[in-house]
Amino acid sequence: MLHMAIDPESPLLSSFEGPAARVLNARGSGAAVLVCEHASRFIPAALDRLGLDGEAAQSHAAWDVGAMELAVELMGALDAPLVHSRVSRLVYDCNRPPEADSAVPARSERFDIPGNQGLSPAHHAQRVRDVYMPFRDLLAEVLTAHKKPPILVTIHSFTPVYNGVHRDVELGILHDTDDRAAQVLLKRSADCGLRVALNEPYSARDGVTHTLREHAVSRGQHNVMLELRNDLLDTPRGVNRIAGLLSPMLTDLVSDLSQEAASS
Amino acid sequence: MLHMAIDPESPLLSSFEGPAARVLNARGSGAAVLVCEHASRFIPAALDRLGLDGEAAQSHAAWDVGAMELAVELMGALDAPLVHSRVSRLVYDCNRPPEADSAVPARSERFDIPGNQGLSPAHHAQRVRDVYMPFRDLLAEVLTAHKKPPILVTIHSFTPVYNGVHRDVELGILHDTDDRAAQVLLKRSADCGLRVALNEPYSARDGVTHTLREHAVSRGQHNVMLELRNDLLDTPRGVNRIAGLLSPMLTDLVSDLSQEAASS
Repeated sequence: MLHMAIDPESPLLSSFEGPAARVLNARGSGAAVLVCEHASRFIPAALDRLGLDGEAAQSHAAWDVGAMELAVELMGALDAPLVHSRVSRLVYDCNRPPEADSAVPARSERFDIPGNQGLSPAHHAQRVRDVYMPFRDLLAEVLTAHKKPPILVTIHSFTPVYNGVHRDVELGILHDTDDRAAQVLLKRSADCGLRVALNEPYSARDGVTHTLREHAVSRGQHNVMLELRNDLLDTPRGVNRIAGLLSPMLTDLVSDLSQEAASS
Repeated sequence: MLHMAIDPESPLLSSFEGPAARVLNARGSGAAVLVCEHASRFIPAALDRLGLDGEAAQSHAAWDVGAMELAVELMGALDAPLVHSRVSRLVYDCNRPPEADSAVPARSERFDIPGNQGLSPAHHAQRVRDVYMPFRDLLAEVLTAHKKPPILVTIHSFTPVYNGVHRDVELGILHDTDDRAAQVLLKRSADCGLRVALNEPYSARDGVTHTLREHAVSRGQHNVMLELRNDLLDTPRGVNRIAGLLSPMLTDLVSDLSQEAASS
């Protein structure tokens, strides 16, 4: 098996490959903290592309196409810190807890992931230690350092066709057990011109709200997850259009939730 | 002509399309300020893609492929502010002064730019007012706001084949009349594993050092322009590799120049 050649005690990323997670605009003063768990399709050289061919390694299975570009635009518009993983979700999906089967997927949509099959506990622990924990710890640190309790907004994209089925929704607004921010944003999105749906094309039952739960729900802080259909993000014009739609909605969301807090 | 339908008194970018330039990580505390003049291939909708076909509008003529991804990595590694244009250089090349013919090019490499041909003075002035001036003013503001005189580092990429000629150089280090930072960086790059050359594939004589001249040389501040061959930046692994090479070189550059200043 591919991963057997790797020493699980060694760092998975070389020092040359840099940190597994990063915060941009750390001292941003906006009231939101943005997160992009699936920002990159980067697979550390040690993993030999997980045995994937070029199509799979570049597909939405490896990352959320366009999500990071959108997140950077929103970061600029909202002056928000942005925490992102620098490693493909096929290596470790930072929006999953270590115990989830999908954290290190053996299969993703129509792609088998050879380098993730029959992974030993030590090699699994290496992924957790070197990809998930740096991301989790960095996000926790950024949230703690923020002046006031920020609104956590995670930015994702989804493929228009999944397992052969076309998806009509363009913007999915997802929540875990705390739906306050999601409901406000849903109202604010009524006239935005996108086909918006709550908890589409995924929902908490699909296990996709781990970041919300781990970092915000547990502290009673506002949070929401955004899912954009990635054919809306495949050109700079598309990214700018969506950023132009979402920026005022998110600014209003912050304002609404702040007023609510002040009057309660 | 294409642009005749546009009112030169109106804003070229709709409010929806956002600002023409942006600073990321504005409160970054590093000693460098990064600039990416050719970060985006975005053409405002009003310009109707300047009459270009898809190939030209997506090619290196429209932007510096991979430069923004690299700049964002360096921004994170150096905690540097990053000022970038959000508009294609085919609309206005922010690394050119308004009086340069190449500021609004009628032709770029093998592409004619229909929307730039026979441009009236009023339409040219609109490009200057709405693309160049916001960029120039923002960069000046960021440099002025910085705690101590920062080192200006501009990040560019070039196509491996230009007008049919292959280029061997991988990293070009360019300077204007002040070559202090360029010479230090050239020494620091000796063992980096890239084919490095001073003032290749362009030099000040090609008119490419406008940003350096306008914002740093004029104030006696350190500055350097980096040109990366864009086939080194066409994958996340490539971007990470180049960022991993450049980050310590730039950190050392800052350190060397600071020591020089302290001992002089």
